[in-house]
Amino acid sequence: MVFIPPPHDQNGTAASSSKDISHWVDYQIRIRYAETDQMGVVYYSNYLIWFEIGRSEYCRKQGFSYAEMEAQTESFLAVAEVSCRYHAPAHYDELVKIRTSIASLKKRALRFQYQILNKQNGILIATGSTTHVILNKNGSPKTLPEKYALLLRTPLSKNTGPRRHPWERRPDDPII
Amino acid sequence: MVFIPPPHDQNGTAASSSKDISHWVDYQIRIRYAETDQMGVVYYSNYLIWFEIGRSEYCRKQGFSYAEMEAQTESFLAVAEVSCRYHAPAHYDELVKIRTSIASLKKRALRFQYQILNKQNGILIATGSTTHVILNKNGSPKTLPEKYALLLRTPLSKNTGPRRHPWERRPDDPII
Amino acid sequence: MVFIPPPHDQNGTAASSSKDISHWVDYQIRIRYAETDQMGVVYYSNYLIWFEIGRSEYCRKQGFSYAEMEAQTESFLAVAEVSCRYHAPAHYDELVKIRTSIASLKKRALRFQYQILNKQNGILIATGSTTHVILNKNGSPKTLPEKYALLLRTPLSKNTGPRRHPWERRPDDPII
Amino acid sequence: MVFIPPPHDQNGTAASSSKDISHWVDYQIRIRYAETDQMGVVYYSNYLIWFEIGRSEYCRKQGFSYAEMEAQTESFLAVAEVSCRYHAPAHYDELVKIRTSIASLKKRALRFQYQILNKQNGILIATGSTTHVILNKNGSPKTLPEKYALLLRTPLSKNTGPRRHPWERRPDDPII
Repeated sequence: MVFIPPPHDQNGTAASSSKDISHWVDYQIRIRYAETDQMGVVYYSNYLIWFEIGRSEYCRKQGFSYAEMEAQTESFLAVAEVSCRYHAPAHYDELVKIRTSIASLKKRALRFQYQILNKQNGILIATGSTTHVILNKNGSPKTLPEKYALLLRTPLSKNTGPRRHPWERRPDDPII
Repeated sequence: MVFIPPPHDQNGTAASSSKDISHWVDYQIRIRYAETDQMGVVYYSNYLIWFEIGRSEYCRKQGFSYAEMEAQTESFLAVAEVSCRYHAPAHYDELVKIRTSIASLKKRALRFQYQILNKQNGILIATGSTTHVILNKNGSPKTLPEKYALLLRTPLSKNTGPRRHPWERRPDDPII
Repeated sequence: MVFIPPPHDQNGTAASSSKDISHWVDYQIRIRYAETDQMGVVYYSNYLIWFEIGRSEYCRKQGFSYAEMEAQTESFLAVAEVSCRYHAPAHYDELVKIRTSIASLKKRALRFQYQILNKQNGILIATGSTTHVILNKNGSPKTLPEKYALLLRTPLSKNTGPRRHPWERRPDDPII
Repeated sequence: MVFIPPPHDQNGTAASSSKDISHWVDYQIRIRYAETDQMGVVYYSNYLIWFEIGRSEYCRKQGFSYAEMEAQTESFLAVAEVSCRYHAPAHYDELVKIRTSIASLKKRALRFQYQILNKQNGILIATGSTTHVILNKNGSPKTLPEKYALLLRTPLSKNTGPRRHPWERRPDDPII
């Protein structure tokens, strides 16, 4: 698979394309000491944790909590596949922007894509994607509940979530 | 020892006392899915990572970056001892407040203390402390560079950090 | 709390004392790259994961699987308190010996203690302890099922588990 | 046990073929409680840590220590790309077999491929690959030192490492 990062400006705001089924939702974190390894950079598996944070915040910005979906509908977005390309190293204490978008959305599967950028200098650190199947409590495949499929699919400006752009902070967001 | 959680208001702001050498610095994080275990709560070692985040943010609020101190002076705050008490479970997606304070500060050692609270309901989740020795690049003990000792010790209102109140512990606060 | 490591010989075999309610069970692991940080040593929270491995192997050597106990009796050994002292650094690829013992065992609580040693040179890396309460599925305190209390308490040579010394390999142990 | 590689697609790992430049090296681990998440299975980023263990053991079986190579030649195998497919869930306390092989080996880059299996029932849990570039201490690309290129490439039976099959234990391996 050849992944071509979409164009983006210094603030990491993606240029929209009419073909996109999705927009990009941004979230920022600060790199933890625990995330580094003896090479002095972030250990490579931690990017997958950042992807998960991206998914979680994507859902929140679309107007629902992934935690609630899991608890109320017993639907789990199990990861079936992941890929990640590492473009530049990341270091302790740096601010990182996690950009998340939906690449495809079907009844029983969906795919998120991600961009990880250094917040200060805008350098692209990593890109990746995760493919998910929806499982019930017992691990059997199921259909994504319609309510959530709709929320994931709907553009931010039209859904039932907070009417604001993805780069806006919420009052209860971490102060980084 | 019977642990009595200190009084705190909804914002977790402790009352002041003139005897204290330190104030409390707050920082918030959102719990990651990766931090849970199969018991459905945050796995116990992750609290130590939160403590580390607390230390890092404490330094930042005092006007310096721990990352810079490490890089520029080759001084490392190695952990010599840690203790943690778990008062209530923490769950995925909850907002958590990390409160950090300095319990003691000597030339070659210092001790941080921590309170972890659920941000939404104010419940005390955990308390703990870490004792550190200052090491050089080769792992030998050294003195904390005076510049940083001063910044750590100085009340927020007098250093270059943000002016925040109140910064003190109560007499009946835990010395952990 | 002052923790005094019990005497042990070069092989890490603890000298028994008549007061001991427990023996030491040993298990070895090799340090993962992922467990290091940018200081070039094992990050401090990972020792708590090693403690957990120690507990798990202690149970196995006593003749039962902690995983089975959790699944069959819905009894969870929740951690109420942990402490750890770091005596010497640990590095990537080193072999580490995890020594686990029961320090106290009551109806509703128990305490494990641990020693972490460098396998090659016998140096003591860390010591610590964890205090646990027994919780049911809903997080309420309960009594440790008698079957398991008995297995934990009984000396290896007398219990219903496999009759062998803790340093013997089992057929299904990892071939490393 | 004779391992029969499962069917796979373009993005999966290769089955054995006469064109393979490499053999498979096996290593086993037991799943840690810390590696599970609230879904009750191993969290998806931990597989990348298992891949790293596989690489490390692959090197050891070829007659050298990755830790030594890093320290002595200041050559780092930085990960440029990773992919992983999750075929079946993995659970706490299960024994897992990590199978590692070299998929390609060039002067400045190499690729490992992996299979993760449940040791008890032989079920394929995951497959994946990592692509690496060789970096020096400052993060600039360099050539893999010839000594190590040779050791990685040479079949086990012909290299300068220990003459034994990969499933044999070494005297200094952990006695578990």
